[in-house]
Amino acid sequence: MRKERLLSPGPTPVPAEVLLELAKPVIHHRTAENRAIVREVTDALKDVFKTKNDPVILASSGTGAMEAAIVNTVAAGEKAICVRGGKFGERWAEICEAYGVTPVCLDVEWGSPVDVVAVGDALKANPDAAAVCTTLCETSTGTVNDIEALATLTCDAGALLVVDAISALGAMELRMDQWGVDIVVSGSQKALMLPPGLGVIALSDKAWARAEQAQRTCYYFDLLKARASLAKDDTPWTPAHTLIAALRRSLEVIQSAGGVEAMWAFDAALAKATRQAAESMGLALFSKAPANAVTAITLPDGVDGAAVVTAMADTYGVRVAGGQAQLKGRICRIAHMGYIDAFDVICALTALGYALADAGHPVDMSGIAAAFAGLSG
Amino acid sequence: MRKERLLSPGPTPVPAEVLLELAKPVIHHRTAENRAIVREVTDALKDVFKTKNDPVILASSGTGAMEAAIVNTVAAGEKAICVRGGKFGERWAEICEAYGVTPVCLDVEWGSPVDVVAVGDALKANPDAAAVCTTLCETSTGTVNDIEALATLTCDAGALLVVDAISALGAMELRMDQWGVDIVVSGSQKALMLPPGLGVIALSDKAWARAEQAQRTCYYFDLLKARASLAKDDTPWTPAHTLIAALRRSLEVIQSAGGVEAMWAFDAALAKATRQAAESMGLALFSKAPANAVTAITLPDGVDGAAVVTAMADTYGVRVAGGQAQLKGRICRIAHMGYIDAFDVICALTALGYALADAGHPVDMSGIAAAFAGLSG
Repeated sequence: MRKERLLSPGPTPVPAEVLLELAKPVIHHRTAENRAIVREVTDALKDVFKTKNDPVILASSGTGAMEAAIVNTVAAGEKAICVRGGKFGERWAEICEAYGVTPVCLDVEWGSPVDVVAVGDALKANPDAAAVCTTLCETSTGTVNDIEALATLTCDAGALLVVDAISALGAMELRMDQWGVDIVVSGSQKALMLPPGLGVIALSDKAWARAEQAQRTCYYFDLLKARASLAKDDTPWTPAHTLIAALRRSLEVIQSAGGVEAMWAFDAALAKATRQAAESMGLALFSKAPANAVTAITLPDGVDGAAVVTAMADTYGVRVAGGQAQLKGRICRIAHMGYIDAFDVICALTALGYALADAGHPVDMSGIAAAFAGLSG
Repeated sequence: MRKERLLSPGPTPVPAEVLLELAKPVIHHRTAENRAIVREVTDALKDVFKTKNDPVILASSGTGAMEAAIVNTVAAGEKAICVRGGKFGERWAEICEAYGVTPVCLDVEWGSPVDVVAVGDALKANPDAAAVCTTLCETSTGTVNDIEALATLTCDAGALLVVDAISALGAMELRMDQWGVDIVVSGSQKALMLPPGLGVIALSDKAWARAEQAQRTCYYFDLLKARASLAKDDTPWTPAHTLIAALRRSLEVIQSAGGVEAMWAFDAALAKATRQAAESMGLALFSKAPANAVTAITLPDGVDGAAVVTAMADTYGVRVAGGQAQLKGRICRIAHMGYIDAFDVICALTALGYALADAGHPVDMSGIAAAFAGLSG
């Protein structure tokens, strides 16, 4: 008998009622029944994004939604300021380059948030920049950027603020319309508690206006086509509609837990307790501005970090994420988004403690339970 | 109590063991366990495509795989001959236009197969055409094109033969390498017996060589990146890996039914029986070259065809497809692909007979059972 526990920052565990929805017989997607589901899910997503416009659901990963953001609103030859403070910030610049958009890269030390003043300076130096592309939670480092402050800058400058909220949407505070964010993208396999396969994207009126005017190079990710279909609760291409039906269930789970604001508050408390527990274990936090969706813990010097993360999975059945690229072997990342509760994180930290001890680096685990007191039950 | 029966040419019914795979707890995709699944499925898909090269699985609908075919192998400014004999043939030309490829359109009357000689003439008139884009089964009309003959032409001319086999792969004979087809695309929700959400695409050596040399505009659908990842049984972006795990099950179902050749033979027999039954009902076939994956039946003059198709679903629980675009209200389309057997088609034809009688146009249903004798049990 062996139990597996998934605490990676995507994919995340999926509640049983959502999984069972996926096991239902497939219905046809061009039916009144499916259109009603599309409408219900679209309306519920507005509250998750905190926006008045209909979010668009794509049959793709989150990266597809990132591509949709760029190709619909920034033309080849235009400039986009790309904040690069991790693997996913880098992806914005790569997408721009692939489509002939000139990325103006603002490199940020991994683990640090972007300096808002530096973005302001970049906007002044590049008054023709069509967009600023960044992340709410940089998943590779567990770092939060101050999107509200950045939105003030882009609103003044007239540029679009394009935010990768793939790991943050539904887990961390994000008030798209109130803050003035223009494009937010996410994916299904994070706080939306689904398997991967759906990208979601919401646009402000300003972003839609750009899409209407921009010289666009796209077909599958054509958001104007998607919007025209969505007006009839439909999609231009065959949707991944069984995942959309499952999304209806996971949005119900969020609603019954008190709504998205309650999720933000819970994940904030969970992340705070995780940081406290890690410190009680004598382990440092990697990020200088830790996000609430995922905590990156620096593994001790002299320990083979990749082996520790592997041992957590192989020996203890707890799957967290290690470091990517330059952080390989240096950190472990424990998710707090979606269907993850305090006991799950307690298990993950305990498994980390066991694996470190097995690797010859025992840590103090006596403070773990206290850190999470009051967060469960 | 009401039973629903799905016989549309996508989505198709999904076997219970495949649905249950989708209800299993989600594992992480960057693991040895998932890489083993990706490898097993990729190897099994080679036999479905009848090709030696690894097919690539995309998190998208079939339209995404069509876009991938064009953007990776045909550069902006180049020409592609597009056979337009239905809604899906038209899609090739639309994708070309979106990416600056000049479509040379060969318009074919809906319901007729493309004239091979006409394609040869188009290749002679356009010796610089980079590709010929067509369909194996044009789903909107239920018509089969002679891909083997077209491949002889494109091999001689040096152009790529790009085939939409979305509704045909696994249902109709297709020998990619032996015939000399360069690109074949399909989707998960047809004969592969899955919900929608996966696109699949296979390339010949000639097509891969083009991809290596072409001036490409793509990111999410970058097949060179996908191939590099697939060499390590991995994907560049988060895959829809629970659907891939389910695909392993549906490929096992195909294998246990005798393999893809047995599926071709069964669907051919099912389609032949359907044509015979329709004729015994006094109903005409719409296509001049009926495909084996789907049969398009012309609805009698004076009958509201769209209402008949709706009544089949609403009154009798049998979901077939009506006509699209110029064929709206004129035909009904009954699928034979995937997890559909003779009794399913008998039910569909019987429901069609009932619905026609309800609409004041009774037909002779006495020949239905005989047409399918020997095809079940």
